[in-house]
Amino acid sequence: MTTTTYAVSGMTCGHCTSAVTEELTKLPGVQQVRIDLNAGGTSAVHVTSETGLDEAAVREAVDEAGYELAASSPGATA
Amino acid sequence: MTTTTYAVSGMTCGHCTSAVTEELTKLPGVQQVRIDLNAGGTSAVHVTSETGLDEAAVREAVDEAGYELAASSPGATA
Repeated sequence: MTTTTYAVSGMTCGHCTSAVTEELTKLPGVQQVRIDLNAGGTSAVHVTSETGLDEAAVREAVDEAGYELAASSPGATA
Repeated sequence: MTTTTYAVSGMTCGHCTSAVTEELTKLPGVQQVRIDLNAGGTSAVHVTSETGLDEAAVREAVDEAGYELAASSPGATA
């Protein structure tokens, strides 16, 4: 299991995090999505998946939800 | 037809305005809801209805959407 943290900008409320969570959860292999909302700034989106995710797919999902992927940083692999 | 402008606080994005619009549109007699979003401040919610609306019902609908009605000011009657 791998957790990767993505920086996503533009989210301002719980509806925003729901939209992003919904899109990311659709990606194959995604087990859990947890978001530390920083309204008006850059939020940390923690995605736990069976294997590493394709950043392009993550970027597309975030874009689909209406927000922008700023950066990603691989987390611990369990 | 009557349009009343309500001041609603706490809305920050298009999802918020959608949630408020959805709840207000459920009220009997409501024809149109238009929102001037002031993210992080007080937004103007313009509700057009066949007849005047019960403020308590409007307050409850806004509360149901997760926001707070701050004030109302009757608008023009057409």
